[in-house]
Amino acid sequence: MTRGIGMLRWCRDWAPVLKVLSVLWLVLALFMLLPWGVLVWEGDADAPAFARSLLVVLATVLMCWWLTWRIPVALKTQQMFVLTTLSWVSISGFASLPLVLGAPHLSLTNAVFESVSAITTTGSTILTDIDQLSDGLKLWRGLMQWLGGIGIIVMGIAILPFLKVGGMRLFQTESSDWSDKVMPRTGGIAKATLGIYALGTLVAILAYGIGGMAPVDAVVHAMSSVSTGGFANSDASFGAYADQPHLLWMGTLFMLLGALPFVLYIRFLRGSPLALWRDEQVRGLVWLLVVVTLILSLYRVWRGEAMFDALTHTAFNVVSVVTTTGYASDDYSQWGPFAAMAFFYLTFVGGCSGSTSGGMKIFRFQVAIKMLLSQLRFLIHTHGVFVSRYNGAPLSDEISRGVVAFSFFFFLTIAGLALALAMLGLDLVTALTGAATAVANVGPGLGDIIGPAGNFSTLPDAAKWLLCVGMLMGRLEILTVLVLLTPMFWRK
Amino acid sequence: MTRGIGMLRWCRDWAPVLKVLSVLWLVLALFMLLPWGVLVWEGDADAPAFARSLLVVLATVLMCWWLTWRIPVALKTQQMFVLTTLSWVSISGFASLPLVLGAPHLSLTNAVFESVSAITTTGSTILTDIDQLSDGLKLWRGLMQWLGGIGIIVMGIAILPFLKVGGMRLFQTESSDWSDKVMPRTGGIAKATLGIYALGTLVAILAYGIGGMAPVDAVVHAMSSVSTGGFANSDASFGAYADQPHLLWMGTLFMLLGALPFVLYIRFLRGSPLALWRDEQVRGLVWLLVVVTLILSLYRVWRGEAMFDALTHTAFNVVSVVTTTGYASDDYSQWGPFAAMAFFYLTFVGGCSGSTSGGMKIFRFQVAIKMLLSQLRFLIHTHGVFVSRYNGAPLSDEISRGVVAFSFFFFLTIAGLALALAMLGLDLVTALTGAATAVANVGPGLGDIIGPAGNFSTLPDAAKWLLCVGMLMGRLEILTVLVLLTPMFWRK
Repeated sequence: MTRGIGMLRWCRDWAPVLKVLSVLWLVLALFMLLPWGVLVWEGDADAPAFARSLLVVLATVLMCWWLTWRIPVALKTQQMFVLTTLSWVSISGFASLPLVLGAPHLSLTNAVFESVSAITTTGSTILTDIDQLSDGLKLWRGLMQWLGGIGIIVMGIAILPFLKVGGMRLFQTESSDWSDKVMPRTGGIAKATLGIYALGTLVAILAYGIGGMAPVDAVVHAMSSVSTGGFANSDASFGAYADQPHLLWMGTLFMLLGALPFVLYIRFLRGSPLALWRDEQVRGLVWLLVVVTLILSLYRVWRGEAMFDALTHTAFNVVSVVTTTGYASDDYSQWGPFAAMAFFYLTFVGGCSGSTSGGMKIFRFQVAIKMLLSQLRFLIHTHGVFVSRYNGAPLSDEISRGVVAFSFFFFLTIAGLALALAMLGLDLVTALTGAATAVANVGPGLGDIIGPAGNFSTLPDAAKWLLCVGMLMGRLEILTVLVLLTPMFWRK
Repeated sequence: MTRGIGMLRWCRDWAPVLKVLSVLWLVLALFMLLPWGVLVWEGDADAPAFARSLLVVLATVLMCWWLTWRIPVALKTQQMFVLTTLSWVSISGFASLPLVLGAPHLSLTNAVFESVSAITTTGSTILTDIDQLSDGLKLWRGLMQWLGGIGIIVMGIAILPFLKVGGMRLFQTESSDWSDKVMPRTGGIAKATLGIYALGTLVAILAYGIGGMAPVDAVVHAMSSVSTGGFANSDASFGAYADQPHLLWMGTLFMLLGALPFVLYIRFLRGSPLALWRDEQVRGLVWLLVVVTLILSLYRVWRGEAMFDALTHTAFNVVSVVTTTGYASDDYSQWGPFAAMAFFYLTFVGGCSGSTSGGMKIFRFQVAIKMLLSQLRFLIHTHGVFVSRYNGAPLSDEISRGVVAFSFFFFLTIAGLALALAMLGLDLVTALTGAATAVANVGPGLGDIIGPAGNFSTLPDAAKWLLCVGMLMGRLEILTVLVLLTPMFWRK
């Protein structure tokens, strides 16, 4: 009897999670139609791989609906945490199906690594001879990143602030209030964001196309630029266009646009032309990018590069790493030890909260700097009271604590992951930069193996699985996953 | 007229600082008598180098006394910050004199690097053929570390808690209360600490002597063990005794004793036999050392080492790095990537506050872990109130903020230093581990150049000066130096 009630309660708690998940899976299935259509159109032998994958996902969705169709969707905090984590894990899993069933016939490990890297918009790849892939598969790689990109924006606007993860409360709006409501009032904002995201992608496709890219390249690169994902259609990454500066500058612009807070675009379009410029995050990010690009360009000119070339490639690769896109137009690990160290640090930074980019996010650095300055002030004027402000509003203790906890957990996750990778035999630089690039969702690491000129294919399988965990944890802002691992979370 | 008053005020403010400094320099001069005596006794041609150095220091002391003898010593916070920083810088400077004037005839850069490394108890060296040095010089290297060791204990007990640097307020006792008093009530504690420090050194000398070391080796190694300094009398560091496990275990014990809070020894001797065991810092440190040693020993046995040998060398080198001594009994960078990564992490840890060791200090990790756990609890039970405790007392926000600020500044200092070293052309691993080992006052880094089997002599001069700054900043708990660099500190 008690057992029966326990079962019922368990179903009431978790069936809604399954129901929401199945809606997300359905979206994924619909997106599989596109590469399938392209492959059928081109008469490619690999079309059935997508058809089969689509059927598997659809069957799962239908089964879940049959199980849950009478259950109302009411989610509490606990379920939101589980739903958020499960959605990224399960979508990555389903998205890997075409890679196993179809042409490159990847091993399960490689397929999952590639799809996790795509969905988390990391952009590390285990594929070689990428330009030989079918158009359908190229498109699928771009679509996975594009989907991941919109997923992270919605998560950053609507879910993480509500879960109070890592100081994200700073960006809480009315749209973040999910408590005790069946569906949030995010409807309007979500639709507007999706519209802007799609519009931005369209503009990027046209620009790249007019700039001279082949249609499939324009589409894929547009999707992986705006989503700050970083998959390219060549083993040389964006280096395939290394001698076409106009394409590099376009890429720089679209990556940057993907790394700015999407709500500000909405405000901009709704009649606040200065919304972007007035935002402390945006100004911080742009200021950082300009300063770092100038310093590194000067360093490269000092080492004997031509001025314009140095500036173009430095801007492109700095923006690529800071926005956590991860395209490389050149092997920047060969730009000298100072540049290599700088790129290692830039791996951690990330773009703005509420954008498609990963990393620690620029606002956490800004909040941390404010805290450090106020601590210095405290040492000098022991009895003063100092209130820091962010974007005009005072920084509460809750937000500061959240930012600090996030920063510590971020570094601990990278340190733990690097230690585990070293245990598998990876050298110090590969282990450390591999862990950092995964958790920050950037893409390339440093060193001969996984550097901008390298590839993740030769790593041992266990390392690939560990990096998948790292990419997912980074994408979920770490704490979302960590709370699931505490016994306290599961106690009533 | 106003200018005259300004001058007078300036003198009133800073003459007391000079007066206290000159007392410290006199102590240094007195210690120079020892190696001078040894050199004279052995009829070494280098005795005059020490005599001349002694005269320079004495002359400076006398001049300062003549300038300041009528001025009362009353120090405010501002002067304390300046005094603390200047004392370490000036003593390092004076201590380098014999190295320039005498036998190895080092360049100014090398001499200052060696003496800063000694006085900060870091233990990185630029000397080669160390066993060929005169006994007087070996003794001087040991004495510098021994002096630095007692300096840091006194600073940790009496000065830093008063300055509220980096959460050190946690260890504030009545003896830390300097405010508005001419001399603190630290007299009793300082004397007792000095007595215990001297006693511990004596025990170590006897133990090493009975264990089979030559007299000068026993004395120098005893001084550099108890001070967790790490200078040895051989290019192979403690590896000269690699096949004498009893000496390695003695070294392990004495390094550990140097890294425990010295006030607890006083409590222990005054009749609280459990004082050490009940302390959360001590338990945390011992627990960490045991766990890490066991894991790394198992890793080495798994890689084919003999059990007892693996345990002995692992314990010795782990304790050496965590206590920030920096002896090496073996080239642990060759123990495999997992061990290398582990040693890199261990570089940051450090021993207990109020001991001779450097690093971040174990209590900051413990406080950070408590904060992180309470943050996880907060995410799950949003409306709960959680109070963390340390050593039985509740952790105030002020202390938590201090610990956080210290941790951020610590990593920022290392990151900035590593970037500057990379700018000078050092490779990623050398730059990163060199910066970490300097700021944490450990000694060896990783990689071929400055690893446990290497030496700092081949670095460019500019890198040596930067590392000196890093060692001093680390020793002064960073914030003590940083406040001096803010314009606010110098405004009235």
